[in-house]
Amino acid sequence: MADPIILALDAMGGDFGPAVTIAGAEIARVRAPQASFRLYGQEALIEEALNPYPKLRAISTIIHTDAVVGSGDKPSQALRRGRTSSMGMAIDAVKNGEASAAVSAGNTGALMAMAKVRLGTREGIDRPALVAVIPTARSESVMLDLGANTECDTENLVQFAIMGAAFARTVLGLKRPRVALLNIGVEEMKGTESLREAAVRLRGADLPMAFEGFIEGDKIGAGDVDVIVTDGFTGNVALKTAEGTARLVSGLLRKALTQSIWTRAGYFLARGGLRALRSHLDPNNHNGAVFLGLNGIVVKSHGSANAAGMAAAIGLAIELLADDITRRIEADLNALGEAGAQPDVSVAG
Amino acid sequence: MADPIILALDAMGGDFGPAVTIAGAEIARVRAPQASFRLYGQEALIEEALNPYPKLRAISTIIHTDAVVGSGDKPSQALRRGRTSSMGMAIDAVKNGEASAAVSAGNTGALMAMAKVRLGTREGIDRPALVAVIPTARSESVMLDLGANTECDTENLVQFAIMGAAFARTVLGLKRPRVALLNIGVEEMKGTESLREAAVRLRGADLPMAFEGFIEGDKIGAGDVDVIVTDGFTGNVALKTAEGTARLVSGLLRKALTQSIWTRAGYFLARGGLRALRSHLDPNNHNGAVFLGLNGIVVKSHGSANAAGMAAAIGLAIELLADDITRRIEADLNALGEAGAQPDVSVAG
Repeated sequence: MADPIILALDAMGGDFGPAVTIAGAEIARVRAPQASFRLYGQEALIEEALNPYPKLRAISTIIHTDAVVGSGDKPSQALRRGRTSSMGMAIDAVKNGEASAAVSAGNTGALMAMAKVRLGTREGIDRPALVAVIPTARSESVMLDLGANTECDTENLVQFAIMGAAFARTVLGLKRPRVALLNIGVEEMKGTESLREAAVRLRGADLPMAFEGFIEGDKIGAGDVDVIVTDGFTGNVALKTAEGTARLVSGLLRKALTQSIWTRAGYFLARGGLRALRSHLDPNNHNGAVFLGLNGIVVKSHGSANAAGMAAAIGLAIELLADDITRRIEADLNALGEAGAQPDVSVAG
Repeated sequence: MADPIILALDAMGGDFGPAVTIAGAEIARVRAPQASFRLYGQEALIEEALNPYPKLRAISTIIHTDAVVGSGDKPSQALRRGRTSSMGMAIDAVKNGEASAAVSAGNTGALMAMAKVRLGTREGIDRPALVAVIPTARSESVMLDLGANTECDTENLVQFAIMGAAFARTVLGLKRPRVALLNIGVEEMKGTESLREAAVRLRGADLPMAFEGFIEGDKIGAGDVDVIVTDGFTGNVALKTAEGTARLVSGLLRKALTQSIWTRAGYFLARGGLRALRSHLDPNNHNGAVFLGLNGIVVKSHGSANAAGMAAAIGLAIELLADDITRRIEADLNALGEAGAQPDVSVAG
């Protein structure tokens, strides 16, 4: 039997608050019977949202708080005043052992800052990173860092590669994920010094991944590698650019398909196929960014996620717990430490 | 009457060599009767490609050379050995005043290195940048740097903004382009120090642009701003990610639309609308990246561009010459210099 899993949910986070958080928890409950919930936020609203779901109500504890981290709050404000907020209390539940993982759809910057300060960074990790699953032409890949660290050095990139590979083994079910560093060319001398050195380090280490060198931006969506590693600035821009482009193309497509009676008829006939496409690209089906490298698991759900999206984010937390991802990362870091005892490699170029 | 314009074409560049270069020149000739051509490369191949176009032949001079810069050649190799190549000779023609601008579909790194060394960087510009027009939901925007400079400081970003705005005034025909810096958030404290300082500098200067602060990756395709300014690493990754995503969505769309007889019938009916969409996103209709900030104009055509793409790249060179873009940039740099005499601004944050 699987261990019992207790999830701390920030019920107030996201654009829709308790209604979507609770509806998502209900979907997650059906999928994962070993899970129970601690729900943080305004009791009356949470009780109301729980009304249609008596089975969920039975495995949920409500912890009332009036304080909420606003979507416009700065991380520094959240650190000063967020301790008693629904988000802060959900994180503290992980710290105190009252919950196994926390899930919030609230303010990303505030969540990262509070999680980092309250839970602390794992030994062997210099900086935690934001990781998520992205859709590709073949199926799905993993990408990190998506915005936790604006500037990264060689060591950060190597650690991101290890964390990303462990994440891909768990979430994508791969034995030996193919890992690549995002760069502006695939030749050895391309990019920044940190990237070139990280490539040398990863090539030389004996880790449970297939290191494939560099990958360019136009190959992210192709699915040729399973883990795409980059600094938080580039990762954030690339992910958002991909989202924006997908939206641009879909918008133009809609316009193109509704411009005449013929195209509208075509659209009607083709709608089944288009629905499948939309589903593959729907962010709700890939929802949940994980703040990896902390003493505890914290999952960020997209602010505009619907109930299915929230359920995906909760499901992701459950998967990571079931697979004990933090222990996996630890083992790989130890393996790298041993490889690091080999003579240092210098970089040409 | 317009001044006569002489274009130096690297006839051997790109995936298809003289056949596409010459066919593109023929399209450009019809559009721009004031242009004449100097064609660099293997004479026999060029003559053969010119055969169907007697009017183009009449306004072309062929300069034979056997040497070609390979697509895999490193910039350093090109600098050592590329002087007598079709690409190197086309650049030298601009330097010597034999041509007004050079166009090549060859190796980007080699072209940038040779153009920079042979033509030299303009006074007032620390580093030249690669700029191009990209399609957006509304129409088109301009983006730079797309890969010339891996790391950029405040000064570089400010100069890119000025060059990009001048480019947008010429190519997009705008009086006062809206300019933004690509960042991972729109708040003042987001991003690197260089970005934050560049924003302060641009906000304080009196330039022929509307500076709009920061823009995130998902807004690139929306067309909310006319000029997107970033370092060459981020710009290269973002542009390629956008291309890859557009390709991913189109590929998935094709799959979705051919999966059953109904979707195929729908595809058939809607094909007119889809053709318009494809045309708007077709890189050939936005072809031509310009290496701005040099003493002379050099346009890079995409290696896989077809004749229409090559014609667009040549047309872009002609537009920039007709509008005397280098003088525009100079005037704006002078305006910035005067603004720089104001008390220095410090950055909070």
